[in-house]
Amino acid sequence: MKVLGIVVEYNPFHNGHLYHLERAKEKVNPDFTVAVMSGNFTQRGEPTIVDKYARAEIALSLGIDIVFELPFVYATQDAGGFAFGAIGILHRSGVVTDIVFGSESSDEEFLKAIAGILHEQPWRYQEILHIKLKQGLSFPNARKEALFEYVKEKKILDPERVRNIEKSNDILGIEYVKSILRYGSKVRFHTIKRVGAEYNDGSFKGKLSSATAIRRMIKEDNFEKAKEALPEKSSEILEREFKAGRGPVFWSDLDRLFLYRFRLMDRDDFKRIYGFVEGLDKRFYEFSKKAKNIQEFIEMVKAKRFTYSRLRRMMLYVLFEVTKEFMEDVNAYGPQYIRVLGFTEKGRELLGFMKKKVSIPIITTPSMYEKFLQDEELQINEELYKKMFLYDIKASDIYSILYPSENNREGNNDFKRKILMI
Amino acid sequence: MKVLGIVVEYNPFHNGHLYHLERAKEKVNPDFTVAVMSGNFTQRGEPTIVDKYARAEIALSLGIDIVFELPFVYATQDAGGFAFGAIGILHRSGVVTDIVFGSESSDEEFLKAIAGILHEQPWRYQEILHIKLKQGLSFPNARKEALFEYVKEKKILDPERVRNIEKSNDILGIEYVKSILRYGSKVRFHTIKRVGAEYNDGSFKGKLSSATAIRRMIKEDNFEKAKEALPEKSSEILEREFKAGRGPVFWSDLDRLFLYRFRLMDRDDFKRIYGFVEGLDKRFYEFSKKAKNIQEFIEMVKAKRFTYSRLRRMMLYVLFEVTKEFMEDVNAYGPQYIRVLGFTEKGRELLGFMKKKVSIPIITTPSMYEKFLQDEELQINEELYKKMFLYDIKASDIYSILYPSENNREGNNDFKRKILMI
Repeated sequence: MKVLGIVVEYNPFHNGHLYHLERAKEKVNPDFTVAVMSGNFTQRGEPTIVDKYARAEIALSLGIDIVFELPFVYATQDAGGFAFGAIGILHRSGVVTDIVFGSESSDEEFLKAIAGILHEQPWRYQEILHIKLKQGLSFPNARKEALFEYVKEKKILDPERVRNIEKSNDILGIEYVKSILRYGSKVRFHTIKRVGAEYNDGSFKGKLSSATAIRRMIKEDNFEKAKEALPEKSSEILEREFKAGRGPVFWSDLDRLFLYRFRLMDRDDFKRIYGFVEGLDKRFYEFSKKAKNIQEFIEMVKAKRFTYSRLRRMMLYVLFEVTKEFMEDVNAYGPQYIRVLGFTEKGRELLGFMKKKVSIPIITTPSMYEKFLQDEELQINEELYKKMFLYDIKASDIYSILYPSENNREGNNDFKRKILMI
Repeated sequence: MKVLGIVVEYNPFHNGHLYHLERAKEKVNPDFTVAVMSGNFTQRGEPTIVDKYARAEIALSLGIDIVFELPFVYATQDAGGFAFGAIGILHRSGVVTDIVFGSESSDEEFLKAIAGILHEQPWRYQEILHIKLKQGLSFPNARKEALFEYVKEKKILDPERVRNIEKSNDILGIEYVKSILRYGSKVRFHTIKRVGAEYNDGSFKGKLSSATAIRRMIKEDNFEKAKEALPEKSSEILEREFKAGRGPVFWSDLDRLFLYRFRLMDRDDFKRIYGFVEGLDKRFYEFSKKAKNIQEFIEMVKAKRFTYSRLRRMMLYVLFEVTKEFMEDVNAYGPQYIRVLGFTEKGRELLGFMKKKVSIPIITTPSMYEKFLQDEELQINEELYKKMFLYDIKASDIYSILYPSENNREGNNDFKRKILMI
């Protein structure tokens, strides 16, 4: 039995996603296809344009058999943490045999070699990395330079190619492979070339536009135009959500919440938050008072060594009080449960297999989440399990406040919404 | 030299306030008149309709010589804490000789007698109070019943009158007198009869309407009508503020901030917050998720033993993370500084006298607040001083987020605005 697993945000599901899904299926020829999908907040540190239920529904309508939720604490991390969470879910599901992801280079051997070095951390590589860090390079740059020199010295790969790993999908691809190695997972991985717009290309390109461009089009109140880039089912469900006042939700909707949260904090409070390195606490503390909105704030905080995505993620960590201490455990143990957002008729069958294979809870009914703690056969860190899961609940409860229509702003959606069956 | 001190919110300054001020001056015939005024948040647990700078400006235009800011931590407390802070400022100014406040009964001897019992806590009174509390009465009710029985037993006052101390101005009056006793202050106090609408009467009564009614009229977009109840200078400055996008600000503007804050918290987090008694943590925790806005929330939390004002105050304590531990010090030591919001030409002279008389810092330039810590002659609790003052700064920084026009939402206003001189 072959089960294909993919990692997605579907924010929103567009033609490029459909194309990717079809190519992946051609490559693997699976019996089932599952996706692990970010919940209500993304790797770019933004709330999703519509909530996880609507996005899961679209995914199930367009060829995915089961949608798992990537826990908030992984969905909002950089490539390393994001991949560690996503691969963790697919691996720990116990049924996924093949993983496919997009890649610019699409050279599996190359990705594997690099991921191998990063995973095994040979002594000589560590030595060079140490020197680079001492020279004052940021960690990502020191790592790149150390890899470059290491492969050059060992003559195992083309060093110039190493220097060119810049495109986000290749960085992510390496992290996926590294995570596979880290879990000691037997899943096979495959890459496919991306088509259409770049991940971060914000300009609208018609049929094959990026999610960023589509969201921008919707923000500019041009949903009709955005539809060109969306499969019909995706357009239909998005439109239904917008009409019901459950979207579209944008980063700017968090404006006053961010300002409130930042201005409440003392400078030292920032230091406890995940991701805060030297000096950023001061910048957040001071600029949150100098700025009149969060767009202005982020422009003030921005420095060459921080990408916008990283800053937005850090802003989320502050909003949700995500501490360094907690994230150490998150990134040491991996996902402690598999939340199922929905499944198709066909997916139900796979879910049956899964339940016999897993060693972590499969949560289909969130209100039952505490019951699992009585099952002594499960291999989980109980405290981490609870805390990680409650972050998903909080993310939903706070996301609800952003719905355009006040009538939808009640919380507890995770406990009230029935699991999707299509 | 006679200096009249009064305690005000001026939210906004209306005809009744002007009448009260004129009667008070007639009574005392002072050389100077000063007011201690709530900052950007009130005893009802609400943000003020326009900020403290605009309200101080109105006060200075209409007969007050110096406006002091009542620190946030006192301005948002019940009658006891509010009075302890306000009297503390007037007493510690070192220059106030006479205090005048409104009263329903207007019987100074009666207020003095009651305040005396509450301050001295005679043994027999404590004994009855203890019994009443054991019978399950709430503290305010137990206190009232104990007072009733005590004065009946001792035959010192008409017990039925004690039972009728319900009107908010008499309760506040007793607390003012009690605070005067507690500080061992030599200021004289006088009462004057209130005119016009009751404090809590929300219906608009024309020229002599309550502040509540006036705010409601403004909220209903009927500022023209509201003007009937306002002195011209008050109308003029309010209108200028509204046109500049610095008001009107309403409690409902805190809606999403409250929901965000409450939904972020775990149930136990509420227990650390000032004012949370048995069971309220559960109600806040659960209902913040069940409600779709704060109006619905407060209706759900409301129970007979909690007034709306008390609940709104508690909501503010959560929003500002005001802890029980901190408030113990606040209510033990009293105000640690006197913040001057503005003064008239005449007030400047008085400020000169004051500076020679006080034993706590007089803050006219907030950015200098740390300098006072070097002055060894001041009698303050340094840690409390800093923390109390920073709450006023935070209150301003968070209030700024509520300004209707985004252009006004920068923080640091306390450091940027010059002191008012009229």
